[in-house]
Amino acid sequence: MKNEHTDILVLGGGPSAFVTVATALQNFPDKKITVIKEDEISLVPCGIPYIFGETLGESAKDAMSCGGPMAEMINLIIDTAVSVDIETKTVVAKEHIITFDKLIFATGSIPFVHKTLENALHLENVFTIEKHKDKVDILKDYLADKQKVIVVGTGFIGVEMAMELRSVGKEVTIIGGRHILADAFDVDMALQAEAIMVEKGITLALGQHVSRIVSEGNKALCVELCDGSCIGGEVIIFATGYQPNTALAKAAGLKLARYGGIWVDEYMRTRNKDIFAVGDCCGRRDFITRDPSKVMLASTSASEARVAGNSLYGLNYLKGFNGTIAIFSTMMGDRVFASAGVTEARAKAENIHYTVGFFEGMNRHPSTIPDASKQSVKLIALKSSGQIIGGQVIGSKEAGEIINIIGLAIESELTAHKLVSLQVATQPLLTAAPTTYPIIQAAQQIIRN
Amino acid sequence: MKNEHTDILVLGGGPSAFVTVATALQNFPDKKITVIKEDEISLVPCGIPYIFGETLGESAKDAMSCGGPMAEMINLIIDTAVSVDIETKTVVAKEHIITFDKLIFATGSIPFVHKTLENALHLENVFTIEKHKDKVDILKDYLADKQKVIVVGTGFIGVEMAMELRSVGKEVTIIGGRHILADAFDVDMALQAEAIMVEKGITLALGQHVSRIVSEGNKALCVELCDGSCIGGEVIIFATGYQPNTALAKAAGLKLARYGGIWVDEYMRTRNKDIFAVGDCCGRRDFITRDPSKVMLASTSASEARVAGNSLYGLNYLKGFNGTIAIFSTMMGDRVFASAGVTEARAKAENIHYTVGFFEGMNRHPSTIPDASKQSVKLIALKSSGQIIGGQVIGSKEAGEIINIIGLAIESELTAHKLVSLQVATQPLLTAAPTTYPIIQAAQQIIRN
Repeated sequence: MKNEHTDILVLGGGPSAFVTVATALQNFPDKKITVIKEDEISLVPCGIPYIFGETLGESAKDAMSCGGPMAEMINLIIDTAVSVDIETKTVVAKEHIITFDKLIFATGSIPFVHKTLENALHLENVFTIEKHKDKVDILKDYLADKQKVIVVGTGFIGVEMAMELRSVGKEVTIIGGRHILADAFDVDMALQAEAIMVEKGITLALGQHVSRIVSEGNKALCVELCDGSCIGGEVIIFATGYQPNTALAKAAGLKLARYGGIWVDEYMRTRNKDIFAVGDCCGRRDFITRDPSKVMLASTSASEARVAGNSLYGLNYLKGFNGTIAIFSTMMGDRVFASAGVTEARAKAENIHYTVGFFEGMNRHPSTIPDASKQSVKLIALKSSGQIIGGQVIGSKEAGEIINIIGLAIESELTAHKLVSLQVATQPLLTAAPTTYPIIQAAQQIIRN
Repeated sequence: MKNEHTDILVLGGGPSAFVTVATALQNFPDKKITVIKEDEISLVPCGIPYIFGETLGESAKDAMSCGGPMAEMINLIIDTAVSVDIETKTVVAKEHIITFDKLIFATGSIPFVHKTLENALHLENVFTIEKHKDKVDILKDYLADKQKVIVVGTGFIGVEMAMELRSVGKEVTIIGGRHILADAFDVDMALQAEAIMVEKGITLALGQHVSRIVSEGNKALCVELCDGSCIGGEVIIFATGYQPNTALAKAAGLKLARYGGIWVDEYMRTRNKDIFAVGDCCGRRDFITRDPSKVMLASTSASEARVAGNSLYGLNYLKGFNGTIAIFSTMMGDRVFASAGVTEARAKAENIHYTVGFFEGMNRHPSTIPDASKQSVKLIALKSSGQIIGGQVIGSKEAGEIINIIGLAIESELTAHKLVSLQVATQPLLTAAPTTYPIIQAAQQIIRN
């Protein structure tokens, strides 16, 4: 056992750990920073589906860069933390005992599978999508000589996995609720994504959930759905979400929030001002409703990590955001689907008095520019004030940044009235026309409503 | 002569006229709207350089869509306005006399050439870049069998013309100030654009200006530069900017602003509350310094047109922007150069106490994603408060939308402190990593300064 003292101790090896360290290094260059992480190589979490297709093709290509010079400025320990003692400010790992002044939990999340199905996970052909390289490699190896794959779950990871597996010739069935990506897109937008999946040859089993896994010996044979039908497959992959990894924090006596994340204040501090939590392991609130939120996104984690990294030794400025705006994007074939804030369906469910603006145009101007394609933007705003509370974009690759314009508008509490006179850079080869820039057109429609 | 009365009369056929009409139609569906424009077919102004290369290849492909159903809802007159009488609210055109309740000048801009060189414009091989289809066609025809072309002027239009002409095999020399695109980019960024031009085989004659055009008969032989050297060419194209087209407004007695544009208030109203001016023909102010501005951009024009179109019969809400933020983008080879607000050089010249953040990373994550390429962001902020006042981006196509995130930050008067905890959508195939999103990284650097 090695005994050490450190000023700042970070538990975890994912994006939130990385950003906490990078931010702390900038703010507190004189402090000793120690990181305990389990794996030598951390994967880029949102890159994992692309390991299974041709885009990346192997887990080695999905390694998080360890930050170059940063790695040499910190004390990096590959080990597994076993317990945390808050009173004595000590973390015990398998081979290290470390005392700290400031502790940051960045322990991430682990796959969630409904408890009635958990026992199926011991079957040799039933998997979740883990974020550890060795686990990812096992699944990839197992898939190598298999043909029929069932993906359970129609969130981003499930959909991306299905698309990537299909791209390398697997027969893929995806099982989920009435529409794919339902938390992020309204039906009108989701239908376009579903059409792309069908066109690629993926079988959609929607409006379903799994009631049980039928097995023989150590192998699952098929998935039985709520309507009684069965779908057979050689490999079953659960992509039914993640849950905060908080076993250590819970054992240490830290308070947890509604969905099991570590309770933190707006500055990512637990009730103990020397102990922080960032990323998927912490409890989140929704930007619009202020309710607890289950959203897990590396970009939200990175924002939280920046707040924590800037605030370890006291608050320097007010936090720029209050709750997650659930801002996502993904690619389906050559189309991008991106979303931020609340959908229309969610606004309805939350009894928000809302109005909608929609515009479909082209992403180049004039539309004779060779790579021009369709681009559509939907904005959701409060009916009374026109404040933007959500947006969805379908388009070409640049839609991945257009959603960030909408995200900034939501975070900054801008109204449609402000957006109609927004000044944007427009260029024939790069954007929609100045006369029909889609965010502005959608905002104009909201004003008219 | 035909006599008519209209509720709303728009003079012009460019983007600002189009948007004024579209906005007025939405707001005042019961009003009769009349447009007088000179050309049957209007060109997309910023598409004009691409007519000269392979991207569009012909002016017919650069026609502005006439708005489909909109065209049938308005009274469109192809004619040339000759005089405006403000007292009697009458516009006289060559074949029409029209009385109006509300008049909007959207008469655009015309090429500017320094007055010491104006007389060279009568030579058969000296051109400006006009926005009329017939004039563009004449230049394109003239270029067809010529090889050596000189472009004078290193703003966006000059640079784009040079690149397009080079792409179809012309020998191109471009003449201009110390660096290209100098109003929009600092030297560190401009050098990268210059390297691309050189790589494409364009000759750069920088740190120069034209002292005279040497001619023989009706033809220019060469351009004499301020250092006494001469550059010979078969065609000389002036891309030395544009000036407001205000002959009509001036003759009507309307007040003009410093650089010759029609004076307007924040709601695009002249001193006469029934007469508006929008687009390049109106006087502009700079967002940061509040000084008169020479910036001419279709997107700024479109913003102004939306403000006018919403305010024709009274103000409905406060305008969302105060002055132009000069937000541009262009493409050089496969790299995008985009800029908004003030450059570092300009901040220095304006005696602004500023600080700079810069970050260069990759536009995909991990960087093993097949189409990953470099992406760099520079932010300029007020030193005291961290308020963002400018930004420059170099990257792949999505940089054309990244600059619009920065533009929104400038317009919304956000600080670097706000941006460091910005929530952005990040996706392996579409954006930088959440851990190293370039706007956030640059903002973090500003905070540290």
